Order: sequence, then C-alpha cells, then structure tokens
Amino acid sequence: MEFDFERLAADDRYKILTSTIVPRPIAWVTSLSKNGVRNAAPFSFFNAMSKTPPIVAIGIQANADGSMKDSARNILDTREFVVNLVPRSAAEAMNLTSIDAPSDVDELALANLETSPSSKVRPARIAVSPVAFECRLHTPIEVAPSQLIVLGEIVQAHVSDEFVLDAQNHYIDTPALNLVGRLHGRGWYATTGDAFQIDRPEPYAKRSERAR
Amino acid sequence: MEFDFERLAADDRYKILTSTIVPRPIAWVTSLSKNGVRNAAPFSFFNAMSKTPPIVAIGIQANADGSMKDSARNILDTREFVVNLVPRSAAEAMNLTSIDAPSDVDELALANLETSPSSKVRPARIAVSPVAFECRLHTPIEVAPSQLIVLGEIVQAHVSDEFVLDAQNHYIDTPALNLVGRLHGRGWYATTGDAFQIDRPEPYAKRSERAR
Repeated sequence: MEFDFERLAADDRYKILTSTIVPRPIAWVTSLSKNGVRNAAPFSFFNAMSKTPPIVAIGIQANADGSMKDSARNILDTREFVVNLVPRSAAEAMNLTSIDAPSDVDELALANLETSPSSKVRPARIAVSPVAFECRLHTPIEVAPSQLIVLGEIVQAHVSDEFVLDAQNHYIDTPALNLVGRLHGRGWYATTGDAFQIDRPEPYAKRSERAR
Repeated sequence: MEFDFERLAADDRYKILTSTIVPRPIAWVTSLSKNGVRNAAPFSFFNAMSKTPPIVAIGIQANADGSMKDSARNILDTREFVVNLVPRSAAEAMNLTSIDAPSDVDELALANLETSPSSKVRPARIAVSPVAFECRLHTPIEVAPSQLIVLGEIVQAHVSDEFVLDAQNHYIDTPALNLVGRLHGRGWYATTGDAFQIDRPEPYAKRSERAR
C-alpha cells in the first residue's frame, strides 16, 4: 500500500512515522528558560548523528496551537540543554514529564525527580538517569514555523560508575543500563532485553580473494 | 564517571555514543551514483525528525581514510534516496550490505536482494522491507569534512498490505513488522518483542482542577 506524503494530512503522516520508525531512543531533555524556570520533557525523534564533532539531533514538534514547545524555546534562548537517557525504572516518571503543562510549571518537581549539577552547562541532570549528555546548541533548523530540529554538540558525558566496565577503554555495560525505546501509539515502549548478535561481514578484500 | 567530550578521541566518543544511545532504528538506505551504480547500506544514526514537513535525519560518518561514504556522495549528487526498514528476517542480509566494498560494487546483488520500483524517485526499494520511505534531499549539513548529516523529506511511503490494519485511519500493525534496532558493540541488535505500555498522563488542566 502506498501513502502519498505530499498530500497526506500532518497527523496521518505522524501516525505512519511513529508506528513504523521503531524502536526510537528517548532524549529526556532538561533545559532552563531565560528566566530560570526548569523544564523536562521526553523526545523520541532523537539520535546521535555524528562522532566528529559529537552531535545529537532532536526533532521538536510545534504545539497543537502552532506555538513553539518550551524545550525548543529554551534551547534557542539559552543555547544549552542536557539529554538524559531513560532506564526502565524511570519510564513512568519520564511519561509524567510529557504532560502539557504551562511554561511556568517545573516538570521535575511535578514528577518528584531529583537532579545533579552539570559540569559545563547550567541545566541540571536527572539523577535517576544512568547516562546524561551535556550539550550546547550547534545548529537550529526551523523546518517550519515553531517546528525545530536541534543539532546539539555534546561537551560532557556522565555514566553512572556501576555501568562503566572499563574506563580506560570506554566500555559501557549496555544491557545493564536497561534503557527503553519508544514504539507506536498510546504509550508503547520496548526494552533492549530481547537482544541478538550478528557477526560483522568479513572485509571485502578478503571476500574477493577467497572468491578467486 | 565523567567523560570530557571536548578532549576525548573520536573513536572513544563513538564507543560511548553507540553503547548508550540505544535502541536505534535502522535506515537501510538505497541510492544511485551519478553513473547509475546501485548502493545499499545500513545506518543507525537515523530517526524521524519532523512531521511538517515530513523529515528524516541520517548521520553518515566519513570513511576511516577521511573520504566520504558512497551513500553520502550519492545523496549529494542525485538528491534522492530510499529509507527501507529492517525486519528481523532481513537482519543478516542488512548486515551483509554494511561491507566496506569499493564504490563500483552493488551491495544489493552481493546480498542477493530483490528490489521493487519506487514511485517518485529513481533508487529502488528493497523488496523484503515491509516499510520504505522515498526521500528527496531537504538539507545536507556537512558538520566536518566528509561527515554528513542528511535531512531528507519523505515524498512517498510504502507499507506492505499485510501490516496495514486500517488504511483509512492509517493504523499500522507495529508489533507484526518485527523491526530491529541497533544496540552496542560488534553486531548487537534488539527486536521490539519485549514491549510494555504506559498510559499518557492526564491533561494538566484536569490534574490541576482535581488538586484544588
């Protein structure tokens, strides 16, 4: 079946995108307004995009009334934010912070979340997150009015000690992080528990030699 | 434990990014060189970024020798590509196409993959993918030499009939797609089989009213 994305309504495009591009990692973003109001909100249009420079991308949809989301406004105003990752144990708290609260509401207080200070940026980290990336705005791309794609440059990473297998070699215990990804529809998520491994293909040169 | 991303070596940043930002959806990208050579390669620095306009982002790292990956070159040259999604049953074939083959090698032939014609762009879709998005280049962002972040605008979507629950309402059977996400290290992947649901929070206005 074909869907013409040049003619489909925005909400129908959104349904198809969110029910097929899965599983999506979740950026639980903490930011500050220019007046210092704390904000936390989850975004699943998110991923790493580059190692050099170290860049993450976050897509922040406009509100239903066409206004800009607080997180987007804050990032444009202050040029700083933190991406906290979400373990299974914090999924319910993360979900609470997705509430449609007015700009002056502190979602961290609302969800009873403790924070830890960041090293290089002003917004705090979420204490229950085993991994957090402090970011500075690299490039904001407003693809439509109030519709923002944020490229952020990571300046500092935090990983809880218990998940660092080998600090010298930067080995992290990924399965133990027990992070969740976003799936489809009303609140479906996946864990990374159902994992499998495939060996990388042998180098092309070796393959060609063998085939001779 | 803290990692200073402004001082860390590129490969160490990459290890940390790929072992913590999980699970990542996979774009199995088909493209054509300006001479018509077919290319297929998987990328896990990928996600939807916007519904209006419908945008996906793909981060394509430079090759180890500093040159640009064929997929990136092709997208810049032809401004067209297809994002095919990867079901569990095609994970091994997808992995084969990640091979470091010279530019004149057709990875689709190498992995014995059949294709179907696209509707609006020249690169073909991968027949075994239950979902494919035909894309036109929206914005290329070269964040460092040969290091590309591609924003693509989706012009057409294909979903295999058997996974469309309700075409009128655009309901897709996400669990049945059985798509895989990328995890850490040498070839670890996750399925979406281990899923759970959390109800969305009640609207803020209702919550505040109840609290009075």
